[in-house]
Amino acid sequence: MKKPWAGRFSEDTSSIVESFTESVSFDHRLWRYDIEGSIAHAKMLGKQGIISKDDSKKIVRGLQDIAKEIETGKFKFRQDLEDIHMNIEAALIKKAGDAGAKLHTARSRNDQVALDLRLYLRAESEEIISLIKRFQRTLLDSSIKYLDSLTPGYTHLQRAQPVLLSHHLLAYVEMFERDVERFSFSFKQINRLPLGSCALAGTTLPIDRAYVAKLLGFDGIAQNSIDAVSDRDFAIAFLSNAALLIMHLSRLSEELILWSSEEFRFMELPDSFTTGSSIMPQKKNPDVAELIRGKTGRVYGNLLNLLTVMKGLPLSYNRDLQEDKFPVFDTVDTIKSCLTVINEMFPAIRFDTKRMQATSGDAYSTATDLAEYLVKKGVPFRKAHEITGKIVLYCLKRKKRLEDLGLKELHTFSDVISNDIYSCLTAEKSVRNKISLGSTSPLEVKKQIRRLQKKVGSKH
Amino acid sequence: MKKPWAGRFSEDTSSIVESFTESVSFDHRLWRYDIEGSIAHAKMLGKQGIISKDDSKKIVRGLQDIAKEIETGKFKFRQDLEDIHMNIEAALIKKAGDAGAKLHTARSRNDQVALDLRLYLRAESEEIISLIKRFQRTLLDSSIKYLDSLTPGYTHLQRAQPVLLSHHLLAYVEMFERDVERFSFSFKQINRLPLGSCALAGTTLPIDRAYVAKLLGFDGIAQNSIDAVSDRDFAIAFLSNAALLIMHLSRLSEELILWSSEEFRFMELPDSFTTGSSIMPQKKNPDVAELIRGKTGRVYGNLLNLLTVMKGLPLSYNRDLQEDKFPVFDTVDTIKSCLTVINEMFPAIRFDTKRMQATSGDAYSTATDLAEYLVKKGVPFRKAHEITGKIVLYCLKRKKRLEDLGLKELHTFSDVISNDIYSCLTAEKSVRNKISLGSTSPLEVKKQIRRLQKKVGSKH
Amino acid sequence: MKKPWAGRFSEDTSSIVESFTESVSFDHRLWRYDIEGSIAHAKMLGKQGIISKDDSKKIVRGLQDIAKEIETGKFKFRQDLEDIHMNIEAALIKKAGDAGAKLHTARSRNDQVALDLRLYLRAESEEIISLIKRFQRTLLDSSIKYLDSLTPGYTHLQRAQPVLLSHHLLAYVEMFERDVERFSFSFKQINRLPLGSCALAGTTLPIDRAYVAKLLGFDGIAQNSIDAVSDRDFAIAFLSNAALLIMHLSRLSEELILWSSEEFRFMELPDSFTTGSSIMPQKKNPDVAELIRGKTGRVYGNLLNLLTVMKGLPLSYNRDLQEDKFPVFDTVDTIKSCLTVINEMFPAIRFDTKRMQATSGDAYSTATDLAEYLVKKGVPFRKAHEITGKIVLYCLKRKKRLEDLGLKELHTFSDVISNDIYSCLTAEKSVRNKISLGSTSPLEVKKQIRRLQKKVGSKH
Amino acid sequence: MKKPWAGRFSEDTSSIVESFTESVSFDHRLWRYDIEGSIAHAKMLGKQGIISKDDSKKIVRGLQDIAKEIETGKFKFRQDLEDIHMNIEAALIKKAGDAGAKLHTARSRNDQVALDLRLYLRAESEEIISLIKRFQRTLLDSSIKYLDSLTPGYTHLQRAQPVLLSHHLLAYVEMFERDVERFSFSFKQINRLPLGSCALAGTTLPIDRAYVAKLLGFDGIAQNSIDAVSDRDFAIAFLSNAALLIMHLSRLSEELILWSSEEFRFMELPDSFTTGSSIMPQKKNPDVAELIRGKTGRVYGNLLNLLTVMKGLPLSYNRDLQEDKFPVFDTVDTIKSCLTVINEMFPAIRFDTKRMQATSGDAYSTATDLAEYLVKKGVPFRKAHEITGKIVLYCLKRKKRLEDLGLKELHTFSDVISNDIYSCLTAEKSVRNKISLGSTSPLEVKKQIRRLQKKVGSKH
Repeated sequence: MKKPWAGRFSEDTSSIVESFTESVSFDHRLWRYDIEGSIAHAKMLGKQGIISKDDSKKIVRGLQDIAKEIETGKFKFRQDLEDIHMNIEAALIKKAGDAGAKLHTARSRNDQVALDLRLYLRAESEEIISLIKRFQRTLLDSSIKYLDSLTPGYTHLQRAQPVLLSHHLLAYVEMFERDVERFSFSFKQINRLPLGSCALAGTTLPIDRAYVAKLLGFDGIAQNSIDAVSDRDFAIAFLSNAALLIMHLSRLSEELILWSSEEFRFMELPDSFTTGSSIMPQKKNPDVAELIRGKTGRVYGNLLNLLTVMKGLPLSYNRDLQEDKFPVFDTVDTIKSCLTVINEMFPAIRFDTKRMQATSGDAYSTATDLAEYLVKKGVPFRKAHEITGKIVLYCLKRKKRLEDLGLKELHTFSDVISNDIYSCLTAEKSVRNKISLGSTSPLEVKKQIRRLQKKVGSKH
Repeated sequence: MKKPWAGRFSEDTSSIVESFTESVSFDHRLWRYDIEGSIAHAKMLGKQGIISKDDSKKIVRGLQDIAKEIETGKFKFRQDLEDIHMNIEAALIKKAGDAGAKLHTARSRNDQVALDLRLYLRAESEEIISLIKRFQRTLLDSSIKYLDSLTPGYTHLQRAQPVLLSHHLLAYVEMFERDVERFSFSFKQINRLPLGSCALAGTTLPIDRAYVAKLLGFDGIAQNSIDAVSDRDFAIAFLSNAALLIMHLSRLSEELILWSSEEFRFMELPDSFTTGSSIMPQKKNPDVAELIRGKTGRVYGNLLNLLTVMKGLPLSYNRDLQEDKFPVFDTVDTIKSCLTVINEMFPAIRFDTKRMQATSGDAYSTATDLAEYLVKKGVPFRKAHEITGKIVLYCLKRKKRLEDLGLKELHTFSDVISNDIYSCLTAEKSVRNKISLGSTSPLEVKKQIRRLQKKVGSKH
Repeated sequence: MKKPWAGRFSEDTSSIVESFTESVSFDHRLWRYDIEGSIAHAKMLGKQGIISKDDSKKIVRGLQDIAKEIETGKFKFRQDLEDIHMNIEAALIKKAGDAGAKLHTARSRNDQVALDLRLYLRAESEEIISLIKRFQRTLLDSSIKYLDSLTPGYTHLQRAQPVLLSHHLLAYVEMFERDVERFSFSFKQINRLPLGSCALAGTTLPIDRAYVAKLLGFDGIAQNSIDAVSDRDFAIAFLSNAALLIMHLSRLSEELILWSSEEFRFMELPDSFTTGSSIMPQKKNPDVAELIRGKTGRVYGNLLNLLTVMKGLPLSYNRDLQEDKFPVFDTVDTIKSCLTVINEMFPAIRFDTKRMQATSGDAYSTATDLAEYLVKKGVPFRKAHEITGKIVLYCLKRKKRLEDLGLKELHTFSDVISNDIYSCLTAEKSVRNKISLGSTSPLEVKKQIRRLQKKVGSKH
Repeated sequence: MKKPWAGRFSEDTSSIVESFTESVSFDHRLWRYDIEGSIAHAKMLGKQGIISKDDSKKIVRGLQDIAKEIETGKFKFRQDLEDIHMNIEAALIKKAGDAGAKLHTARSRNDQVALDLRLYLRAESEEIISLIKRFQRTLLDSSIKYLDSLTPGYTHLQRAQPVLLSHHLLAYVEMFERDVERFSFSFKQINRLPLGSCALAGTTLPIDRAYVAKLLGFDGIAQNSIDAVSDRDFAIAFLSNAALLIMHLSRLSEELILWSSEEFRFMELPDSFTTGSSIMPQKKNPDVAELIRGKTGRVYGNLLNLLTVMKGLPLSYNRDLQEDKFPVFDTVDTIKSCLTVINEMFPAIRFDTKRMQATSGDAYSTATDLAEYLVKKGVPFRKAHEITGKIVLYCLKRKKRLEDLGLKELHTFSDVISNDIYSCLTAEKSVRNKISLGSTSPLEVKKQIRRLQKKVGSKH
């Protein structure tokens, strides 16, 4: 079939080139945004008298028909028409004749595809933000549920200090809150209209870019026409945000995997959220968490993909930019499915709070409380640390716990210790005695829950 | 030497482990921020009565002395003291005795190093923003200087339409403006106080985090103590911004390299900004631009580095996080040196505006103007495009330029063409006839310059 | 539907988990290898008497039937059966009853999927090697065709010395030869049998791994069963090789794009290998080369994807490994299509050898020959270099070419210069005078062609 | 100072450009190889009569003197001399006058730096291979030591089947064996001489490349001169191998971290291989393993760095290539230090074989043995799997172990079960009953040890 740009060509495109360069097999996903943009463009052309009001209406009607056809699966996408833009334009010309042939006035695929991708990422950013918030609420619900549950807090995967399970879960709410901030910011850079830049230089026709921006709900206009068709910053920034988000999910997944192990036994997943083994009849595996952790590679790879594409490209549009779609689409799909599945799975987790609590005071995890006790009695911290270290070593050799030591034994290390020491050596006391802002005490954690509820709730 | 944490240890650290785990050989760079943070911490401890006012003052004075020693190169960093924090604390204890041994009260290296890195990145973000703005002003100066200069605008590295050189340069000003927006946003996420989180759980001592935040000029507090010591989002987001920034620089560098080639000859660099060959006596190479383009790999690599480090790490602090420093430091150095050198070099470029202008009208680059001319005469765009394509093909076969065609010849393609066609076929007319917002016409470009001058100027 | 591993489960898999964890939507591509492997496994089970000969035959026949059904599109893949392995096993059980239920004896999906991926990559490696060799032959054909054509050789994208176009093309043949070496080596590491490792520990049944290896044409056995199910080195090494290969293609593409530009005009692509613009009627773009260059991002991203997946995974099999398939499949598709299209396109290039030749002597590109002339007359090279540099500077100021200088002028720089100097100052002489191994002289280039023909030809 | 290539330049290099483009601050590390290469080059020039024998000797002597000066720290590297090559050449000219000025005859920095990097990577590859082998021997020693020790084998971090600790350790020996294979292969591609390619085109002087290759111990010659100066494949392939190697180390490190946790308690590190906390007096952290795991990011980043640098570079040499050094050097340092420290640390690990053994039979990890038992009694595997699954579910509900079930209870699931079932339900029996090649039985593991000892030992 003759290409719409074939005027100056004397040969047809080789079929191997056609299938190598086509994009409609994946960019058809943008159809809704392509039509939305074209309708706004047609309305503007009509308003400005660049085409007649009547032609403008015909175009709008034709595009709405096409939208319906695509929605109902009746539209046939053709690879020889290269991309979603040409597929829709060709269908429009069939429907609306000369009027349809006027749609592409003062427009290039260069600014059109930039528009479509921005409209797409705008919608998907909003959906992702909303999925994150939903999961934050799920985590907040859990953190309310487990307000009384102690658990070992880890550094270096060694038990460090007892903390509230709620406090631990809230750490993730904080991470996701930063993700929301980042997606909200990148949304602003996405939400600028590139259309009207045409190929790269603008046009001699009296278009009204501000009007199109208003129709499409853009906050601003990507003004410089050369930049507007060359720019994919907004897509890369989106991918960077996604990389941070899935990194957070990978950390949570790692913990769910650890906690599900026989060794930790901090939680169990219901059968419906695990899968079995084809050979080992007893196995029940935390596949969902493993897959989320694994998909981190995918999202990181997609970010590096697009960064690589853009490296060293001269201005303005180059065909390399067509490669922006795959990493963006795959990332959107991955992020959304991960958020959806973990949000379903999380409330189904059965935490073994008894075991968590039982282990939270092990491994001398209140030693820091002992050191702070000494500080309160006037011992310089560095010395208090040393004394406590020696007490721990003493206990280790005798397989004793801190709270098992008698006052006499303790006095051999420091004579400032008195009976009140025992009020800080259990995990419960350790947690309860914390008083600093953002610390793990129930009081502080409740404050944090309220603060985060406001943030997470207020935006919905 | 005995480690400050060695109380519970019965053997010394193996020397191979010592040299493998030490960080002072690279984190000594943080000394200024470490001391700044410690001074604020000591003041707070004094104010809150956790240590005496007197001890607090002794600490502050001791730290100020140490700062001077480091500044003047008198301070001796010791690898066996592991990191910058322990080096400074050990020196302080030597100076201030028991008072010094109290500095680390209610503090861990976990929150301390997070603080130092945030203070460092806060300062460097500001400097980078300022270097970007300086280069934007340099580009704006050039765009004013070349307001009359036409140049070929490219898509697919094929001449597409004539544009103003100024318009092209402003495209970069826009890119860098987005970089400024991004660094300004990430600055906000950096600018939150982690100190007071202690190891991961907070403290039983009555610290005042808000006061420390105020002393250090933070906008907010990283509240959840588990999150605060586990979080490196702020560093990764900084690296992502740097990746986008150097991507922009790589595109500009690519163009400078192309334009310096014998084939383009759009510009020449003065001898002082090029280097020669060890074997070919005639060579003069655009090394600076090549190196900037090459350093893109480094910044991308650093981003991937830290993303990889963080993948799948359970909470809270893990020693892996020590690996955050290298990619951050190397990126800061790379970005700053690239911005500095290109800012110096750019004004020294001698653009061959004659050659640019001469070639800007070649290659049928005003064909789009001809098509838009037909549109204005009522021809539907898609047909106008086809007619123009055929005219170009006709010219190609006859090795004619568009403006060489007679009216009679033109009429064989379309009878709507009349004498006024000749007012749109030269590069000058093409540029001048553009009227859309952000297009390449001198009028629009001047508006853009004013708009950008306001943005770039206003923030300094 | 009940999962084949559901014995110990009391709830069905949640549908959201089912669709999140399923892989048959993409791993169905492995069907041919899955069946090939299962047939070999069944034959071995029969031979060893682990199942009856009769059951073994029933399984083989059943699997062959299934293969035909898949080939002819009659087979219905079911997502609730998770993956290609379970889909085929379930169909087999339907067909062959109890015999089918015996296929999975002494086998786990862990070793089965490792087998399938190795069989797949083995076949695709061979095909990729063959595609590389085909393109090498294409390049060799061109290098024979252009044996008389001079072209500028570049360093720093500055004209450096005249070279033969053939010599330049042969540089790519060399690069691709290294790619062949690398894929041939990684083939060896791929070509080891993992089957028989079962879940991770081997089996108590008397299987014969060597027999299976022989049936499937493996060179060796991945012996340690824990390693065999945990290992994806072979896939990553394949992706690394692909990254190097597409890097080479990106360099060639960059040159085709440069050479197609108006500024270079070293070549033209026929219309059938280019595409046009939707707005600019005169445009003819080198899209194929741009897309290949752009797809570099994809292949790099896929490599980093799988590296990220594997980072820090404890032994043995983890579900994260399922994420190996996407980057491997996408890379295979990308590499094969790029090689295919460039191989078709390359012979269609019309090199403008006249223009290449005309420019090859410009820009003082024979200055090195002048310096070597001086060396032959006894001037130390470093001085010869300096003298030549001064001559170039002298010419630059007077806009003269080296060959335009009279003997008298030359003598002001060095009195060793005599009339024979003129036999080394043109591009033709420069090229012809080269005598070192692998240099650009026609004689040497012919030798290289013969050497490479032997390599490229001998393996097919 | 005047640059050696400054003949045609009328201005000095700007100091900011000088410091931006210099490389001697990091490439001085190549001095030994630069001198080695220059000596071979000078000998060849003398042998071929291109310079006099006497000059050749003077050069060699001068270079040997310089080598001594550098070795003893007396040599002063100068940034204004750009790189290691010019620093040494300048020093040589000072020492040897006109003879020194002849060294650079028939050579360019383009082929010289390629030579130096190859010589460097050749030496480092050998050292890395030797460090890997040393660590393999360490692992083999441990696997002999722990031949009687059972441990849980994991899939999905869930206990799957009991295995021998030795078997698990041997899995790593296998991985490292593949690393050795890969580094040995990439060594071959490194070990080709680029010198003699000069700038890119070869030379008119009668050099003897084969002689130089022989003097320097190269296996072959990188023949095509354009390719030889443009190629960094060998460096990227080296970085890819390093990425796989550190991925293996990251997996081992992850396991050491897990096993050191309170929850696993499978091992303990001596104090000398751990570090403590600045605030928590009881902590003992597996920092070394964490840092190795963290450094994975660094090595991955370095690989991406150089891949990015090379993307889309036109031939031949471009200054971007100077950026090859940093990722190569940093990777070599990282890999060597990681291998060294883990090799020291590993023998110091105290495995708690009692606890490993005690837990190896938990979690129904012999269920697969039960299923294989049923298979041997004639039950089709898929049914045997289901029956066993039901038995496990039955046990789970009653909190029983498999071996606690009476024959009667078992008969309710399958009547083929008889008394001999009890000989396969303990961990010890499970391991001992394995008979397949590469499985976890002591017999097989001993065979593997012998096989691997031969491989690892034979090459040293």
